[in-house]
Amino acid sequence: MEQVKNKQIVLKHYVNGFPKESHMLINDSATINLKLPEGSNAVLVKNLYLSCDPYMRGRMSESKESYVDSFTPGSPITGYGVAKVIDSGHSNFKKGDLVWGGTGWEEYSIINAPETLFKIEHTDVPLSYYTGILGMPGMTAYAGFYEICAPEKGEYVFVSAASGAVGQLVGQFAKLSGCYVVGSAGTKEKVDLLKNKFGYDEAFNYKEEQDLDATLKRYFPNGIDIYFENVGGKMLEAVLSNMRVNGRISACGMISQYNLEQGDGVRNLFHIITKSIRMQGFIVTQYYHLYPKYMEMIIPLIKQGKICYIEDTVEELESAPAALVGLFSGRNVGKQVVVVARE
Amino acid sequence: MEQVKNKQIVLKHYVNGFPKESHMLINDSATINLKLPEGSNAVLVKNLYLSCDPYMRGRMSESKESYVDSFTPGSPITGYGVAKVIDSGHSNFKKGDLVWGGTGWEEYSIINAPETLFKIEHTDVPLSYYTGILGMPGMTAYAGFYEICAPEKGEYVFVSAASGAVGQLVGQFAKLSGCYVVGSAGTKEKVDLLKNKFGYDEAFNYKEEQDLDATLKRYFPNGIDIYFENVGGKMLEAVLSNMRVNGRISACGMISQYNLEQGDGVRNLFHIITKSIRMQGFIVTQYYHLYPKYMEMIIPLIKQGKICYIEDTVEELESAPAALVGLFSGRNVGKQVVVVARE
Repeated sequence: MEQVKNKQIVLKHYVNGFPKESHMLINDSATINLKLPEGSNAVLVKNLYLSCDPYMRGRMSESKESYVDSFTPGSPITGYGVAKVIDSGHSNFKKGDLVWGGTGWEEYSIINAPETLFKIEHTDVPLSYYTGILGMPGMTAYAGFYEICAPEKGEYVFVSAASGAVGQLVGQFAKLSGCYVVGSAGTKEKVDLLKNKFGYDEAFNYKEEQDLDATLKRYFPNGIDIYFENVGGKMLEAVLSNMRVNGRISACGMISQYNLEQGDGVRNLFHIITKSIRMQGFIVTQYYHLYPKYMEMIIPLIKQGKICYIEDTVEELESAPAALVGLFSGRNVGKQVVVVARE
Repeated sequence: MEQVKNKQIVLKHYVNGFPKESHMLINDSATINLKLPEGSNAVLVKNLYLSCDPYMRGRMSESKESYVDSFTPGSPITGYGVAKVIDSGHSNFKKGDLVWGGTGWEEYSIINAPETLFKIEHTDVPLSYYTGILGMPGMTAYAGFYEICAPEKGEYVFVSAASGAVGQLVGQFAKLSGCYVVGSAGTKEKVDLLKNKFGYDEAFNYKEEQDLDATLKRYFPNGIDIYFENVGGKMLEAVLSNMRVNGRISACGMISQYNLEQGDGVRNLFHIITKSIRMQGFIVTQYYHLYPKYMEMIIPLIKQGKICYIEDTVEELESAPAALVGLFSGRNVGKQVVVVARE
């Protein structure tokens, strides 16, 4: 019996409005046995990298038939992460394996449904990438852009929250597909990244624009074929006015709406009819069967330097609450990762 | 040269808000030559039945890059109709042929693009049906339900404006597909028709409901798989809250919004993401290549009495403005047709 300390980040209670660090606490008193009980089918992991993702906001609220369960107040927050197997009761995993998937915001976790974990095969790339480009956000960009938008060469693509964990990839995928792509973000630094690092043809800071409809008309005088929707609300309204006939909207997220009591009303949905627009929401887990196909595409692109990925990394589990909260004010630049341990 | 009188309904000027009869006038002084000039490729028709359709509201406004052109103030209104060929300069048509397609709100029209007309082959059904079940609204119900919604047996279907030219068919198609279907309409008479004539499983008068969200929860305790959208606004918002995972919304019309300066805001579009909803707008003309396939399906159903179609018929061209305006207050019961001449 090797009992060790197991620091945890715990949700204190359900959240209304913007989440704050004070909604979470650090539990320093928990311990864990680093050996699974005899006969367990679970996997015990040491958490290395934890992922901060906007969808987690929904889990901080009391569930209203959402697609993911709410967090349990008093228990550690759960989310995606990269981890190392310490002990395994499941035949697919053995001690020393690296995995990514659902884990806890703590130093060590027991994964009771290890079949949901992905075993990490490629270790000649940064391991943290499995919280981003090689993990859930990567699959989100891939499924949402290629599967849902079905891009064609020469099409006009707009991406909101374009420097985020997903958006930075969508822009690069759009360029690889021969599209013209414009992104929006909330700081000058991010706008510069979009243009200089991710290859966006144009980019703008939405916070500096008075009239988003006019802004989009300026960047898309011929209209938008594909909108990769990450923000919702007023941006969606402006986009609808600028969509082209047979346009496609991949509805991935609506981060501008998550902390509002009452969502912004979108008043011009009739464009969906008059322009024969297809708006498709999706949950990335429905596309995980395509993960091997995605890996075949993305690993060579990374190794050949044809695609890049920016992470915003904070050290120590204690930094996780601030990192998560920061997503909703756009403090992160690129994929927000928390390093719990490097090995 | 056979010059005859040609009564016309003319749009006086562009319309804001609800259209009124006074926005149109009857021109009694026009004449037409009932012989086409030598060398013309046009077709000259006598108009028999004219169709009043909600999409025509958009054409009464000054064009803002809509999918259909605005009407021309001072000229006759144009729309779908059934007509008889009087003279033809086009090899596909000869004198005496019956056709349906785009024509003018007048006694006789010259069709300059006769290739857009459909020749009527089946005349053992009411000719007026070619403004409805056998014309544009029929194709709209067919494409919007079968092609866009891809219904499966046992699914839960909701149709708004359910007794209208399109809705009455969608409900019957849903029953033929083994679905459970509920419709909304705006009078008790229409609700009765939905249940007793069109075979809807349930129906309600939306004007008598205080809380559409609660109403839909009552009729769909398990949620809605398919929504055939004809009205938009608050109804769409209530539907989104009640959709099931992988739901489909066929966005056909939003009649509640057409006369508003500022559309109702839909505040809960995040359901599109969390429930992986596909919302697809469409313009029926993009599906006209399926018309022969639709006819193969629908003609036997009509002849076998397995499908019915209710028309609201007014006599005389002079009645057309009131009939058109009545669509927007829901005065019509079923497909609104204007009889200009019976032969």
